[in-house]
Amino acid sequence: MSIRYFEDFKVGDRFTSAGLTMTEAAIIDFAQRWDPQPFHTDAEFAKKWTFGGLIASGLHTMAVTLRLWLDQGVFRSCSLGSPGIGEVQFPRPVRPGDTLRVVTDIAELRLSASKPDRGIARIRQVTINQHGEAVLEQETTVFLKRRPVMVATTVIPSGAAR
Amino acid sequence: MSIRYFEDFKVGDRFTSAGLTMTEAAIIDFAQRWDPQPFHTDAEFAKKWTFGGLIASGLHTMAVTLRLWLDQGVFRSCSLGSPGIGEVQFPRPVRPGDTLRVVTDIAELRLSASKPDRGIARIRQVTINQHGEAVLEQETTVFLKRRPVMVATTVIPSGAAR
Repeated sequence: MSIRYFEDFKVGDRFTSAGLTMTEAAIIDFAQRWDPQPFHTDAEFAKKWTFGGLIASGLHTMAVTLRLWLDQGVFRSCSLGSPGIGEVQFPRPVRPGDTLRVVTDIAELRLSASKPDRGIARIRQVTINQHGEAVLEQETTVFLKRRPVMVATTVIPSGAAR
Repeated sequence: MSIRYFEDFKVGDRFTSAGLTMTEAAIIDFAQRWDPQPFHTDAEFAKKWTFGGLIASGLHTMAVTLRLWLDQGVFRSCSLGSPGIGEVQFPRPVRPGDTLRVVTDIAELRLSASKPDRGIARIRQVTINQHGEAVLEQETTVFLKRRPVMVATTVIPSGAAR
């Protein structure tokens, strides 16, 4: 993994993650813990409901999106965390058997006005299924370390001033 | 749990959840699974980092917020799911030992223009710590079932038309 800093990115850079298949077991397990609504946990109820079968919690899709993105390691050497997440949309349901992949674009880059050690990146993420259809869209702000400045110094040999 | 429909809510209704204490174990466990960044998983690294100690993943705070809210059962009888989440902000870090609580306000209510069986609620949620300080702020849209219409019928006794 190479060391990258704020200066190493440009608007328009795109990073595509590995895929992850959403099993029925994983969908039910996540939902049982965090989002126990019957359309996420009860296959029989879900059959008769709007989507005709179990769908993943939107928060589960967010969690998978975050993990797939972090596994790419793009910001590993420079991330200083995130102050929030923009509007998150779930344009299509995620169903058991769907394979998800995250496409991340660098949408904006600017220097921090208050902290000289960092820049601010805005990333746009679209999580797609195996048909290339969007199942999640979001924008996130991330603080990124700037490249440390190398100060040019002149080494004066001891005794040179004598 | 009483049966409630879209018609049973009004703008300004407020619901406050039970509390949940965020242990160090839960913070590390969640982050290891979904958000494995060292300021969430490595207590020694975190000591030297911006916040001077481990902080919870923002996604973990979102997950706890969702679960505490669902446990109240406010929309249990009428929720038809959510198409997305508005901007999510994390104004303060969540640290091990913090006790979180969710305050949910009904911010907006309108009928669906396309689907007569439902209304659309916009809820504003603020998750607070034991000092009453906000650690998460978000708005979410939720579709809610409308109360089924009771149709007045006149029962014509068989043979009455003869």
